[in-house]
Amino acid sequence: MQGRFLSFEGIDGSGKSTQARHLAEALRAAGHEVVLTREPGGSAGAEEIRRLVLEGDPARWSAETEALLFTAARRDHLERTIRPALARGAVVICDRFADSTRVYQGVTRGDLRALVDALHDLAIGVEPDLTLLIDIDPAEGLGRARARAGTEQRFEDMGLAMQERMRAAFLEIAAAAPGRFRVIDGAGQPDVVAARVRSALAADWR
Amino acid sequence: MQGRFLSFEGIDGSGKSTQARHLAEALRAAGHEVVLTREPGGSAGAEEIRRLVLEGDPARWSAETEALLFTAARRDHLERTIRPALARGAVVICDRFADSTRVYQGVTRGDLRALVDALHDLAIGVEPDLTLLIDIDPAEGLGRARARAGTEQRFEDMGLAMQERMRAAFLEIAAAAPGRFRVIDGAGQPDVVAARVRSALAADWR
Repeated sequence: MQGRFLSFEGIDGSGKSTQARHLAEALRAAGHEVVLTREPGGSAGAEEIRRLVLEGDPARWSAETEALLFTAARRDHLERTIRPALARGAVVICDRFADSTRVYQGVTRGDLRALVDALHDLAIGVEPDLTLLIDIDPAEGLGRARARAGTEQRFEDMGLAMQERMRAAFLEIAAAAPGRFRVIDGAGQPDVVAARVRSALAADWR
Repeated sequence: MQGRFLSFEGIDGSGKSTQARHLAEALRAAGHEVVLTREPGGSAGAEEIRRLVLEGDPARWSAETEALLFTAARRDHLERTIRPALARGAVVICDRFADSTRVYQGVTRGDLRALVDALHDLAIGVEPDLTLLIDIDPAEGLGRARARAGTEQRFEDMGLAMQERMRAAFLEIAAAAPGRFRVIDGAGQPDVVAARVRSALAADWR
């Protein structure tokens, strides 16, 4: 089997990181080499850029500068982690990829979608083979996100109205690329959602 | 008088930083508000990105990722330092600007000129009103650069052949934009070169 590139997306508190881990474990148990990674970050250089962007005063970077920094981090992640793993036949599971940038930088921080898309075309140019969008009620996601302790609170602090806009933006991106997206109902216990993920993948994965 | 944006460019050891300081002093003595700044860096965020790029193993970033990081730094510098200074009528003197990226990333690190130009158009979009290219013999520049102690040796370590390619690249960019560039002979003592700079500016500066 050749390498496959999967991403998990969703609003904060959707459970996508838990689901990414569940799927990684299930595929490893089935004998696949799996590289479980995340964005922003996922390589040594990209993790340094992540710290530069996410720590400190949220207002210290403009939305445009932040889009450039996230693109630099993604380029490093792609070069150092994702492409080498795919080249040796591994399954790459990425907790957030370019769709998160489209939603967070393109929709919630001014209307930067044109810049975000142009940077993606210039410097990244690839999409996952499949993207699993874990879709939940924004109020439930916000409750889960707030229950977590964390040092990177900036995106979680935006409130329910922002969660609703982000959910709508994710669903819109998914609707525009139905061949790549599988929208998964994220309600219920993690093992119930994990079964939905495996079921959604079954049609694509042999 | 409204704000004016000047940049100094040249190969390592050309004396451009010394000349930028000389000109800043002369203009301040004539009563102008002058903001003397430099790239990469020039604002708090851009200085952090500078450290990320220039310190550590030179091979840890690809040329493409480096171009994205320098563009992010330039965007921050433009937003936080250059534009506010020009808006209040100051003279901004910048030690290196986009031409240095065109030469270093576009010519010496693989042929990335197309990416560098596209990033500039997307995220920067401005050029200095005037660029003073301090032109010296590459062997002399290399000797001066090597005589300096410094922690950022990566560009200076490339040797004479690279210095010659960089000089040719600067002259080519200058020839393509004669309205913006003044090419200054950088041979001789700093005060002699400073007189040449003031003379070259006199035609533009009233």
